[in-house]
Amino acid sequence: MSETKALASYILTAAESSTPADVRHEARRSILNYIGCAIGGSRHPAMDRAMKALGPYSGNPSARVLARTEKFDPLHAALMNGISSHVFDYDDTTPQNYMHPTSPLASALFAYASLNPVNGKNFMHAFVMGFEAESRIGNAVYPAHYDVGWHITGTAGVFGAATAVGKLLGLTEQQMIWAIGLAATQAAGLREMFGSMAKAFHPGRAAQNGYSSALLAQADFTAGEYGIEGPRGFAAVQAAKFDLSKVTAELGTDFNLRRNTYKPFPCGIVNHPTIDGCIQLHDEHRIDPASVKSVSLRVAPLVMDLCGKKAITKGLEGKFSVVHGAAVGLVRGKGGVQEYTDEAVNDTSIKRVRECTTAVGDPSITDDQAHIEVTLADGRKLTRFVEKSLGNIHRPMSDKQLEDKFRDQAAPILPAPQIEKAIELCWKIGELGNVNELVEATVPA
Amino acid sequence: MSETKALASYILTAAESSTPADVRHEARRSILNYIGCAIGGSRHPAMDRAMKALGPYSGNPSARVLARTEKFDPLHAALMNGISSHVFDYDDTTPQNYMHPTSPLASALFAYASLNPVNGKNFMHAFVMGFEAESRIGNAVYPAHYDVGWHITGTAGVFGAATAVGKLLGLTEQQMIWAIGLAATQAAGLREMFGSMAKAFHPGRAAQNGYSSALLAQADFTAGEYGIEGPRGFAAVQAAKFDLSKVTAELGTDFNLRRNTYKPFPCGIVNHPTIDGCIQLHDEHRIDPASVKSVSLRVAPLVMDLCGKKAITKGLEGKFSVVHGAAVGLVRGKGGVQEYTDEAVNDTSIKRVRECTTAVGDPSITDDQAHIEVTLADGRKLTRFVEKSLGNIHRPMSDKQLEDKFRDQAAPILPAPQIEKAIELCWKIGELGNVNELVEATVPA
Repeated sequence: MSETKALASYILTAAESSTPADVRHEARRSILNYIGCAIGGSRHPAMDRAMKALGPYSGNPSARVLARTEKFDPLHAALMNGISSHVFDYDDTTPQNYMHPTSPLASALFAYASLNPVNGKNFMHAFVMGFEAESRIGNAVYPAHYDVGWHITGTAGVFGAATAVGKLLGLTEQQMIWAIGLAATQAAGLREMFGSMAKAFHPGRAAQNGYSSALLAQADFTAGEYGIEGPRGFAAVQAAKFDLSKVTAELGTDFNLRRNTYKPFPCGIVNHPTIDGCIQLHDEHRIDPASVKSVSLRVAPLVMDLCGKKAITKGLEGKFSVVHGAAVGLVRGKGGVQEYTDEAVNDTSIKRVRECTTAVGDPSITDDQAHIEVTLADGRKLTRFVEKSLGNIHRPMSDKQLEDKFRDQAAPILPAPQIEKAIELCWKIGELGNVNELVEATVPA
Repeated sequence: MSETKALASYILTAAESSTPADVRHEARRSILNYIGCAIGGSRHPAMDRAMKALGPYSGNPSARVLARTEKFDPLHAALMNGISSHVFDYDDTTPQNYMHPTSPLASALFAYASLNPVNGKNFMHAFVMGFEAESRIGNAVYPAHYDVGWHITGTAGVFGAATAVGKLLGLTEQQMIWAIGLAATQAAGLREMFGSMAKAFHPGRAAQNGYSSALLAQADFTAGEYGIEGPRGFAAVQAAKFDLSKVTAELGTDFNLRRNTYKPFPCGIVNHPTIDGCIQLHDEHRIDPASVKSVSLRVAPLVMDLCGKKAITKGLEGKFSVVHGAAVGLVRGKGGVQEYTDEAVNDTSIKRVRECTTAVGDPSITDDQAHIEVTLADGRKLTRFVEKSLGNIHRPMSDKQLEDKFRDQAAPILPAPQIEKAIELCWKIGELGNVNELVEATVPA
């Protein structure tokens, strides 16, 4: 059987009850993390510009954009959700294929569910199926596909949106095969766009194009039958090397959601071990910032290449400064959105600790590690070696840490009681009678 | 200077008056051919299904779909125009890169101009600029890009739509660079879709995505600066080998429109030399179909592989039958849309001549040639060797033949006086005060 057909068949026939409990919980964690990112990114200029450019071309404003008061047709809402949830590069990552899997998938699903009544059980089943589809297709073409320059979040993400929306639309197997073909022939997104707004456009457009692939297939708009595996299909055209067996291996027993990870800090991932270790020291020793005399960091050499900035004045520069990461960890015991504002970068106490921090690259330190030594005014030395950074697949963020990340992002946008309500609805999403309840909970009054 | 910047600068600064007269005339021929194809394909089931699927998501119905009474927002109208104009594979081809260049480009431009008043001079200048942009980018990546499986009409076509609409929108150079980047990061379309409706979706989506790239850029939605030439840009990611010098070589003096060609017959191009030669014999000898005793064809071996069908009963099968092509040429002296209907395939006279025709593959005959020998009832033998088939770049269709092709496609859709009016407007397009006059002329009363 072809991979496209096998995947289509699985998505349509897998019982909702066959999803293991740990996978269901990881799906809820993914949704919680996604909604927090979508709220946090909802005020980014990329959102305003995309809405200004394309809003006038939206259809009937029947669908909700997460955390915004504007409504659009659901295809445009899917695009906007994709932009907001990825624009701060703070969403989830599956390390085995380097995708940000939830943004293209959930952005389409929430746009769909804001308009069409969908209960939580069906929504989450479609989410799990779409997650498998996009992850497995991504796994099959990684790393050749990513290495040549494809932004896999866009290219593989479109399959997640197409199959998940197709599942909710009740496509036949033939239509699901066409939906996958239409997704394959729209798979796009270049890494050349990194550093611009177009990067966040990728999961948005993938959500929108995947959604419309499902709609076209539902109307019997035909496509090739072998979108994934054909000689001129997605894998062969977009990857010099690929392994199609990964599309179907252990389908129904191995779930890619088990390998999802979440960023604890909204900055370059190479800074994460340092921030993590400094927060540990802060929490354990209740450090008075004024007592810090000097800090010395030994970090992976790559950190110095990417994040060696020391003399900084802007929040955005802070994201590329490992010494700023150390300072916010030691001074505030956290490294959230509020630690990367212009205000935080210029905070007297943070600035002082940052300026007495030195960092050196050490080839014996891996990208996931950091060694920290803090010298206090009284001569004491506090040291910490971070072996595996928080957020790593081997040291996942706890549910509580994910909630705090959500609160941190939502705080500038929503009142506290509404934030707590939204968090509660994320955990309960599988039991909701209508998922639009969660969508509405993200919108400011 | 980067290729992206050089192209953006040229498109924005080239004087309208700098387009040579022969290029202007070829642009009019391209438009005439395109409009005829869009009318001819406007009733195809792919159009009805795309409209059924996506129509409910259209914005304000302010833009006209060519030859249809329905209106959509201009982005959806661009999509529909792209489908109709390519769905019969009867549109133009630039042999040096195998693109169908006008469909993705003009589909966006006519959608734009049906809503926004554009005079013919500005419209045609934008068309010539967009044609250069997409052709040059296509030339730079051909053949590696096409050979691996990209449908270059979709992938390179999006640049045509983005730059041409961007020109009409009056983008700044920075915005045009972003529009090119946004086009690059949406370049898509797999040859795996050939044989399905998704093939015609490619130029449609390219038109729609190119159009929206220009709108986003106009709102300062940023993209990478090196969409074409960057290390992870379009050329490097989508072609194993490429030659970026082709993007800018002789820019402003060499025009790709000079290499555009038009299909004289709505069937597999390998049948064209045979049909062409049989029409010549019909016209020169005023053959009575009843007098044909036998026909023998010597054709390129590829013809027998692709179009060897003899026992046929359907119009669609006729497109893959070289002996049917010979029969319609000899019996009717033409090979238009009406010669590929179910009725024509079952026409007694055509059927009799088809059944007394034999074809053999001959390695000494090129794909562009055919040898025909007709034996008449009175014993006379008429022979014809076609050296270069009609429609070939070395033997272009005449203006009159392009008009007849237009009439043939439009006849089932529009009354004759309206067809003549539309043809007249195509020739006069550069002088129109508002190009929407031509758009409206394609719509049945």
